[in-house]
Amino acid sequence: MQYSSKVLENAIHEIAKLPGIGRRTALRLALHILRQSPEEMHLLSDAIRVLVDDVMYCKNCHNLSDSDICGICADQTRDRETLCVVEDIRDVMAIEQTGQYKGLYHVLGGLISPMEGIGPGELTIQSLVSKIESGEIKEVIFALSSNMEGDTTTFYIFKRLNNPDLTVSTIARGLAVGDALEYADEITLGRSLQHRVPYENSTR
Amino acid sequence: MQYSSKVLENAIHEIAKLPGIGRRTALRLALHILRQSPEEMHLLSDAIRVLVDDVMYCKNCHNLSDSDICGICADQTRDRETLCVVEDIRDVMAIEQTGQYKGLYHVLGGLISPMEGIGPGELTIQSLVSKIESGEIKEVIFALSSNMEGDTTTFYIFKRLNNPDLTVSTIARGLAVGDALEYADEITLGRSLQHRVPYENSTR
Ligand SMILES: [Zn+2]
Ligand SMILES: [Zn+2]
Repeated sequence: MQYSSKVLENAIHEIAKLPGIGRRTALRLALHILRQSPEEMHLLSDAIRVLVDDVMYCKNCHNLSDSDICGICADQTRDRETLCVVEDIRDVMAIEQTGQYKGLYHVLGGLISPMEGIGPGELTIQSLVSKIESGEIKEVIFALSSNMEGDTTTFYIFKRLNNPDLTVSTIARGLAVGDALEYADEITLGRSLQHRVPYENSTR
Repeated sequence: MQYSSKVLENAIHEIAKLPGIGRRTALRLALHILRQSPEEMHLLSDAIRVLVDDVMYCKNCHNLSDSDICGICADQTRDRETLCVVEDIRDVMAIEQTGQYKGLYHVLGGLISPMEGIGPGELTIQSLVSKIESGEIKEVIFALSSNMEGDTTTFYIFKRLNNPDLTVSTIARGLAVGDALEYADEITLGRSLQHRVPYENSTR
């Protein structure tokens, strides 16, 4: 398409690179941006730049953070003996939203997937195993999606832990098998956490 | 929802202000942004800032432009005696895309709509009338959406022009009545321009 302005064309080009946004939507968004006050749209531009430049990952749990250690890990009122293992930061948000969980998290950064070429080395599994071996944690709760990759990842880590003193559980499948964790409603997800089952029993 | 990072929360807050983008989509976009290279995402942030700060409107036709006079108005090979009146800049793009039109444009910036409180004074109608009265233009083609607002606007401007030497036409309704111009396919829209009809006959 021909645009009368290179500045507009460039904005559309960059916006259309975002997932799920085609050129027509990008044009609509660019025209919307032009109708707002410059101050308002500087906030948008700056928020993206600050996100890119300033965000960090917690050195302890790998959650997104504004500092070396995230707010959850730094919160001394939380139960430091319980660790919930999740795929990504959206799962932390979803579980925090339930208000049912007061322990800490470990964000894997993905799931083991031979199909997509993601092996254990691509994830934060070594950091998880070292953290657990260092001793403070008494219970590990796996809150991964109940699909092939989630089950493979849980099984792989369970084998690596190999510690009879450690309680290992998975969240109760109150949610339908195959459902992505992040789309579960709060009540179902909260119940899944309360009714977590020992890993040995979880596939019976 | 609780976010572990204020930087992330702020980005989601700003992105979610865009039309058609809820907080969940904004979160998805923010996480996508975090997975890209900083250089790539600086391009996005900068493109938005430059769009806001640097874009101009053509003093002649009110189209978006990078300079005082847009590329179409500045193009001396175009037919300067024919003027196509459109609602907004998306319509200019749609018509340029057909390759069927070599005249100039006039962008109204909207349509007369008593329902939405948009009167002739909110649009660039005075600028259009003055331009036509100054003499160079021999034909005016109305290419407005065929709905109440479009018909009202065409009729209002037609009455204002009141010049027997001026040919006034509307684009042929090859497109279905009620269809927005910007979604028409190129061939239909191109044909509508070729088969434009004198305004006096257009409602028969
Ligand atoms: Zn942390
Ligand atoms: Zn122009």
